[in-house]
Amino acid sequence: MVSGPSSLSLRTHTCGELNVDHVGKWVTLCGWVQYLRQDLFVILRDFSGLTQILVPQEESASKVKADLCDLTVESVIMVTGTVRKRPAGQENKMPTGEIEVLAENVEVFNVSKKLPFEIKEFVKKSESLRMQYRYLDLRSSRMQKNLRLRSQLVMKMREFLCNEHGFVDVETPTLFKRTPGGAKEFVVPSREPGLFYSLPQSPQQFKQLLMVAGVDRYFQIARCYRDEGSKPDRQPEFTQVDIEMSFVDQEGIRTLVESMLQHSWPAEKGSIQVPFQTMTYEEAMRDYGVDKPDTRFNMKLTDISDIFSSTQVEFLRSALDQPEGSIQAILVPCGALFTGRELESIKQTAKTQFGQRPLLGSLRLQCAELLESHGRPVRDPLAFHFLWVVDFPLFLPKEDEPQELESAHHPFTAPLPEDTALLFTEPHKVRGQHYDLVLNGCEIGGGSIRIHRASEQLYVLKNILKEDPSQLTHLLEALDFGAPPHGGIALGENYQVFL
Amino acid sequence: MVSGPSSLSLRTHTCGELNVDHVGKWVTLCGWVQYLRQDLFVILRDFSGLTQILVPQEESASKVKADLCDLTVESVIMVTGTVRKRPAGQENKMPTGEIEVLAENVEVFNVSKKLPFEIKEFVKKSESLRMQYRYLDLRSSRMQKNLRLRSQLVMKMREFLCNEHGFVDVETPTLFKRTPGGAKEFVVPSREPGLFYSLPQSPQQFKQLLMVAGVDRYFQIARCYRDEGSKPDRQPEFTQVDIEMSFVDQEGIRTLVESMLQHSWPAEKGSIQVPFQTMTYEEAMRDYGVDKPDTRFNMKLTDISDIFSSTQVEFLRSALDQPEGSIQAILVPCGALFTGRELESIKQTAKTQFGQRPLLGSLRLQCAELLESHGRPVRDPLAFHFLWVVDFPLFLPKEDEPQELESAHHPFTAPLPEDTALLFTEPHKVRGQHYDLVLNGCEIGGGSIRIHRASEQLYVLKNILKEDPSQLTHLLEALDFGAPPHGGIALGENYQVFL
Repeated sequence: MVSGPSSLSLRTHTCGELNVDHVGKWVTLCGWVQYLRQDLFVILRDFSGLTQILVPQEESASKVKADLCDLTVESVIMVTGTVRKRPAGQENKMPTGEIEVLAENVEVFNVSKKLPFEIKEFVKKSESLRMQYRYLDLRSSRMQKNLRLRSQLVMKMREFLCNEHGFVDVETPTLFKRTPGGAKEFVVPSREPGLFYSLPQSPQQFKQLLMVAGVDRYFQIARCYRDEGSKPDRQPEFTQVDIEMSFVDQEGIRTLVESMLQHSWPAEKGSIQVPFQTMTYEEAMRDYGVDKPDTRFNMKLTDISDIFSSTQVEFLRSALDQPEGSIQAILVPCGALFTGRELESIKQTAKTQFGQRPLLGSLRLQCAELLESHGRPVRDPLAFHFLWVVDFPLFLPKEDEPQELESAHHPFTAPLPEDTALLFTEPHKVRGQHYDLVLNGCEIGGGSIRIHRASEQLYVLKNILKEDPSQLTHLLEALDFGAPPHGGIALGENYQVFL
Repeated sequence: MVSGPSSLSLRTHTCGELNVDHVGKWVTLCGWVQYLRQDLFVILRDFSGLTQILVPQEESASKVKADLCDLTVESVIMVTGTVRKRPAGQENKMPTGEIEVLAENVEVFNVSKKLPFEIKEFVKKSESLRMQYRYLDLRSSRMQKNLRLRSQLVMKMREFLCNEHGFVDVETPTLFKRTPGGAKEFVVPSREPGLFYSLPQSPQQFKQLLMVAGVDRYFQIARCYRDEGSKPDRQPEFTQVDIEMSFVDQEGIRTLVESMLQHSWPAEKGSIQVPFQTMTYEEAMRDYGVDKPDTRFNMKLTDISDIFSSTQVEFLRSALDQPEGSIQAILVPCGALFTGRELESIKQTAKTQFGQRPLLGSLRLQCAELLESHGRPVRDPLAFHFLWVVDFPLFLPKEDEPQELESAHHPFTAPLPEDTALLFTEPHKVRGQHYDLVLNGCEIGGGSIRIHRASEQLYVLKNILKEDPSQLTHLLEALDFGAPPHGGIALGENYQVFL
């Protein structure tokens, strides 16, 4: 069977593939009328590009001419004819710019009504109009390219995982029991009054159970749900590349992800270098004031507490007197460009976010944005800086009850082996085997080596997190029936923002 | 980077791959203790198979010996040691039956409690116990094989569609507006009081809109939902291979599906022949009494009305006197084996299902089952008989109001071109461009060429189906903005039953 994008189709070729090698060929094209010119040309479009159709002018072809010249923009037609070289001087730089097709037959599939907006990149459309007529918005070459890029990228990831590394694509249920603590889950009423399904936020428990089941290597392009209202970068349903492996350590998972991204990375975006930079949580907070630093630019935080060690300036004094209080500086090159109003906005941020953890990180980004608004390039929009952040604290004080601890990520993350003994003495000092993947300051993935022993999992739930372990009986029981050491990662949909 | 199932792993090899070529090699295996034998051997299992571990008996290895001999069944360990040829006479026919690994180091990852059932194929387990401990059930070699077979089969389909035929994998939303007439949809309460999402039964409308969007070729391994209670072959959530193409006819879709199945078919199941047999709906009903005939065996219906044309036997007479009434026979070879009780059960079926359409089809299957219960083979359990059923009626009389028509499949199916004129005069005679794929008497897929003109779609909705077209305004509007001719298919999850 013939393969390629025109297999099994009414057309013989796509509108983007004809060139001088096809001159003299009898071809059939199908597509949308991009525009008509002077009753002489019809520009026909499909997903792959544009071809110029020459309208025949002879009396004997008057029916074809009439059919073509009556067309409205975005009507759908099939044209059959011969590929010709364009007359000298009429060529252009488009991929099909050296040829045209002289129409000999035309079939009109559908005549289009006047569209609410034109299918042209340069025509500005409002977001709401684009959403209302999403099927028209998707006709633009940019959206066509994006849809195809995503499909191909995911396909390459699948090939890498499935064909090269023995991963098994397993579909996990989405209608299931509520996850303990999963406050943001959608519920789905069942046929039994009072009983509800829940749409899970991630297949976390399923994939751990698959490891207990001996599946060894699992992946899924998993649909996940989160009931917290729509935000520009958070949608109620989203997709993650979900991975879990048995008999692996942190290093193994990280190398796998680096190789997968390298394998699937679109050639047109340049190559990416592995291994990625790695930074501890402590370093990230110290140098960038945030756990997902944008490492495309410098402007690191500098601790200048020493200079002010004997200061009597009151607000500096009081900062230093606080436990772990410090005075930090950000050197902003060309910061002298900032206007009074801009400096005021920086101060305002500092005031409103004072005492919140990522304040210094926010100020650093704000300075970068301000510099860029003055025409000073700071962050290269074409650069991709991947970064692993590791050695997160396993527990953090609860916001409302700082004496209590909660999981920094989730209660299934294993402690660093060298910190395990601290679980029983100083749990707030334990670092977890958790790793976040950061790209240009966005968290695009996160994962961990999991706890695989029931006794350790029970201790964390009951004694440290003070949670009722009865809700996780099924998981604790599974760990007791021969759970292998295992770990994984989820790469989120933020990843797509960059493509 | 090394590829294969042991890449990036703590192990060097899987438990199923070692053979005499590895003799002398220093290897590390990870897996579950299948069983222990006489303090001499530990049989270690992973997804790929079993390896015999030899317990060292020397005094100097007493720690390793003690660790191994203390293990419980299904404990998880890592063993390092040297591959040896088994002593003569101790080999067996297993893939690893000529070698063993002399343990030199062992690490115990997890000691297993006593399991609720053994991980052995021949141990009978109740369905409910298997479901309760699904992660233990999945450890069996049969379930491991099935999960992997499914993953690989779907991967091959993806490669065929995406890499060979230019299909684009597009994820469509599952939290969406209610489909008009979608009575069996789950609802999901939103954050706005009184407003609900709905989980769609299929991406039908999305994929048609993607064709209007010029995506040209779409596929998705789509999660679908149906709120009608669980039955053995119908689950509330299921997965279908969902396909839609532009500029294609019935023949094109059918050839695509045949080639895709041929491409992805597991080699161990033998090859499948294309093109598949094709039968009209009329032929299927006439010869098999059902629209999804099992063509693995004959026993066709034979119309013997003529023989009885002048009968005075009352029940035969009254059958013949009905509109389209007939008398049909099924020749059952060796039917003389049937006992009186069995003949009675056949009569009972005929009585209770009398007047329902697939009665004769049911009787034919019932006879086949009875013959098989007498040890007469009728249906080859290893044979795969694919069949296309085509030329379905586009509309059927409504069950409760036979004067009204409803769609035989769905309201978007296009009529056969030669029947289009009948839409306006005798719509009940119109045949649709619908095709069902049947395998061994099970419907495993169905699709159609769709209506692509708004005026025709509106006429069907309003004048024939008497439905309120305002609920489908968005689709009708989309068809008016340049919809290409298009069609598709959905292959359902019944497909997996046969693997």
